[in-house]
Amino acid sequence: MTVATLRLRRVGIDTFRENVAYLHRDCPVVRAAGFQALSKVQVQANGRSILAVLNVVDDARLVEVCELGLSEEAFARIGVADGHEASITHAEPPRSIAALHRKIDGERLGRDDLHAIIADIAQARYSKVELAAFVVATNQFELDRDEVLHLTEAMIAAGRRLDWHHEVGGGPVVDKHCIGGIPGNRTSMLVVPIVAAHGMLCPKTSSRAITSPAGTADTMDVLAEVALPFERLVAIVRETRGCLAWGGTAELSPADDILISVERPLAIDSPGQMVASILSKKIAAGSTHLVLDIPVGPSAKVRSMPDAQRLKKLFEYVATRLGLQLDAVITDGRQPIGCGVGPVLEVRDVMRVLENHPEAPSDLRQKALRLAGRVIEFDPDVRGGDGFRIARDILDSGRALARMNAIIDAQGRRPGPLPPPASLTHEVRAELDGVVTAIDNLRIARIARLAGAPQVAEAGIDLLKKLGDPVARGDVLYRIHARFEADHTFARGLATRDGGYRVGEAADLPREFAAGGATP
Amino acid sequence: MTVATLRLRRVGIDTFRENVAYLHRDCPVVRAAGFQALSKVQVQANGRSILAVLNVVDDARLVEVCELGLSEEAFARIGVADGHEASITHAEPPRSIAALHRKIDGERLGRDDLHAIIADIAQARYSKVELAAFVVATNQFELDRDEVLHLTEAMIAAGRRLDWHHEVGGGPVVDKHCIGGIPGNRTSMLVVPIVAAHGMLCPKTSSRAITSPAGTADTMDVLAEVALPFERLVAIVRETRGCLAWGGTAELSPADDILISVERPLAIDSPGQMVASILSKKIAAGSTHLVLDIPVGPSAKVRSMPDAQRLKKLFEYVATRLGLQLDAVITDGRQPIGCGVGPVLEVRDVMRVLENHPEAPSDLRQKALRLAGRVIEFDPDVRGGDGFRIARDILDSGRALARMNAIIDAQGRRPGPLPPPASLTHEVRAELDGVVTAIDNLRIARIARLAGAPQVAEAGIDLLKKLGDPVARGDVLYRIHARFEADHTFARGLATRDGGYRVGEAADLPREFAAGGATP
Repeated sequence: MTVATLRLRRVGIDTFRENVAYLHRDCPVVRAAGFQALSKVQVQANGRSILAVLNVVDDARLVEVCELGLSEEAFARIGVADGHEASITHAEPPRSIAALHRKIDGERLGRDDLHAIIADIAQARYSKVELAAFVVATNQFELDRDEVLHLTEAMIAAGRRLDWHHEVGGGPVVDKHCIGGIPGNRTSMLVVPIVAAHGMLCPKTSSRAITSPAGTADTMDVLAEVALPFERLVAIVRETRGCLAWGGTAELSPADDILISVERPLAIDSPGQMVASILSKKIAAGSTHLVLDIPVGPSAKVRSMPDAQRLKKLFEYVATRLGLQLDAVITDGRQPIGCGVGPVLEVRDVMRVLENHPEAPSDLRQKALRLAGRVIEFDPDVRGGDGFRIARDILDSGRALARMNAIIDAQGRRPGPLPPPASLTHEVRAELDGVVTAIDNLRIARIARLAGAPQVAEAGIDLLKKLGDPVARGDVLYRIHARFEADHTFARGLATRDGGYRVGEAADLPREFAAGGATP
Repeated sequence: MTVATLRLRRVGIDTFRENVAYLHRDCPVVRAAGFQALSKVQVQANGRSILAVLNVVDDARLVEVCELGLSEEAFARIGVADGHEASITHAEPPRSIAALHRKIDGERLGRDDLHAIIADIAQARYSKVELAAFVVATNQFELDRDEVLHLTEAMIAAGRRLDWHHEVGGGPVVDKHCIGGIPGNRTSMLVVPIVAAHGMLCPKTSSRAITSPAGTADTMDVLAEVALPFERLVAIVRETRGCLAWGGTAELSPADDILISVERPLAIDSPGQMVASILSKKIAAGSTHLVLDIPVGPSAKVRSMPDAQRLKKLFEYVATRLGLQLDAVITDGRQPIGCGVGPVLEVRDVMRVLENHPEAPSDLRQKALRLAGRVIEFDPDVRGGDGFRIARDILDSGRALARMNAIIDAQGRRPGPLPPPASLTHEVRAELDGVVTAIDNLRIARIARLAGAPQVAEAGIDLLKKLGDPVARGDVLYRIHARFEADHTFARGLATRDGGYRVGEAADLPREFAAGGATP
């Protein structure tokens, strides 16, 4: 418990959400107090205190013997100037670690436990190892529905919260969200302008892709600025009634952002974590009404109708208790939506639908109208069943396109024309005559990522055939677009080993789980 | 999948067992390939390849724009010179990650799965997040005994293995191990010289304390060098038939060393992990016969006799299948063993026993003789039941002391006399008349650590009363020793809140679980 005073130094290393402290191996403190690499230490300066993981340094150019280096985020969090005095001690584990251990041992956690854990996570008091333990433990001993409720509540409490009361009075603040997993599924970029044109307030924030070839934020990024600070986001929504922003800058659910940084590399996406993550962000964004899209299909996140129903009920349970009106729609997730996969190709599809272009993909249009219709029916003045027609009128009349342009201008329109798809192409062709009977969402996503999406916005896949389409041997099923030779080679290689399409007889077509799904 | 070539740079940061790569934020590769902080990357140079976690750097003094920095261990692992060309790509996850996901989902893993996981861990292909996921997942869905067997096997296969056939022919190579948790329990420093003096080969490696006030390696460190490279360790054992070395330099079970670095901060010590960790190290050290000490008591690691029996059977199952003869002894774990807690104080006790000093703690002496006797009975020429007497003769005759001195000299004796216990003291006294009815192992360990042990070797606790001792109000129960004022204050504060002793009536003494435990 030796306390030592050192000179603080900002070390220009971005360790993402983990606070890292750098101490020189010859620092007397390291030796006297027995600090070891990966020890957790408590750093105090000017009345503030943070926990950090220790890295031992052997190079005085990084930190000198009597300096205490802090990684970028840790330095920002302690909030004092470079060179300021700081003290360091062995850290007591954050108080909620006892609750974490109980969860690891399989116990059910109470409301206070989950609030304490999430508060510690939001304050960056957990190491990556402790975060991973929480994520795995809550995945394995599945959270019961009250644990999910309390987790969601705690996530909301740990972040900022938007309040639109001034804008809407008692009226609805709406949102639309998809649980993900379906390439090309860019309905948000249609639903938001349609419902905003109807006059509803829709403060939509989205994520960037991490394992997919494009998130809504990546696709919108082709058209406009999406990294909007909290205050600008509020101003834009006031002006245009809608936005299509990246959620990462809005600080709406900081604990969730931190947990996701561990869930994604582990590919863990348990129902409880999904519900808490989605609902906490929506409620923190001030939404009162949410349409939720749950696609079901053999290569979707949810693979059976019973699983979809269970997930729907869990969403409904938590939403109801937190005062959020939820309309969960189970949709057809057997294949990608639209034709383009990758930011630029998806923008092309979205703009074609908004422009009522003859080549606009009809599945994307139909699905967006269906979801927008459900959102519009949250309007107390709209009769049940009229939403779809109202949405279609707004789209057909060009009012949705006009509203989209207003949103793009408000967020900051990208200069110049839309870039064309990347020029290195490869066509994947049918090997026999028949009907397309399966398209593997995961395989298509993986090939599009290898082609460079989403980092290379112009890269991706253009689907020319969809489920049920008749094909002759040699017909092009889809075209890969890449900018770099290496990406082109990798994507082509993967597509050649298994292109993700199956061609067979019409009778082999998989049943649509969500009967009547994409049409109203 | 962009491949880029950069100049390698050694970055003097010790990130322990995690490979970290440092890339400048303005490096064209970071931007083109979309590397993000915490992405996993594959680094290749001169035909070798490692996986590393990416940290993004904003300071050209750490790495310049076209440099690729590697942390100390990552740099050593890639094994090329500073400034060498290296290429970097997005990493495919290590192949065994699919098996990790199946374990997270609760499946039983097969032999090949566990071998693949452990090989990847030993090769530093897992990030800390993935390691934590493995540790928590195998803790929760408890490994069945065949999984533990395969895990142990895999850990042995991933490291170096000592072979003493040349020294012992077909004779036994012996070891003694305690599962831990009992302060002061330094029987190894007595058992090793006794059995080595009997002529048995005993290549003992131990750990340093991580959560306790002293490990055998910390205590031995007061007397001699313990960080012995593989080859020196072998030479010393050949010369003296025994050693008391730190296991961390011997590379005997590198995967276990890496897993422990995650288990300890999470305080996870599941039976399966404990068995695999202990047995893999013993077998890798070439032992053929092992006496295992399982202390049971209300504040020991194992708290009930049924738990101890279950653990014993798991050890026996795995040991038998791996050809290790195991004699597991359930012992009295109701209180610390000996009087001293902390490296210097424990050395004092050990040397008193070896010197047949009148103040030698009799419980430490008796327990060491009992365990040494069990080891000696592995000698085919010793009659069953004669071990204790032989051990006692060796100790009483001074041959154990002579052998200990030979081992100390071989490892490298510390110059000068033994340092006295640290001079800042605080005495904890009985608050009423009665009998000592409980001593909390965990509390005593915690107070000793706050006092500075093991980093301050002279710090710790000296126990003056043990279970069953009659005390009068005001009698000293134990004395805290600290070198630094702050440590002194913290330890005293904790002891004042709860000193870890209970004084009551003789009838309140807890039943000894391991009946007849410490005496033969």
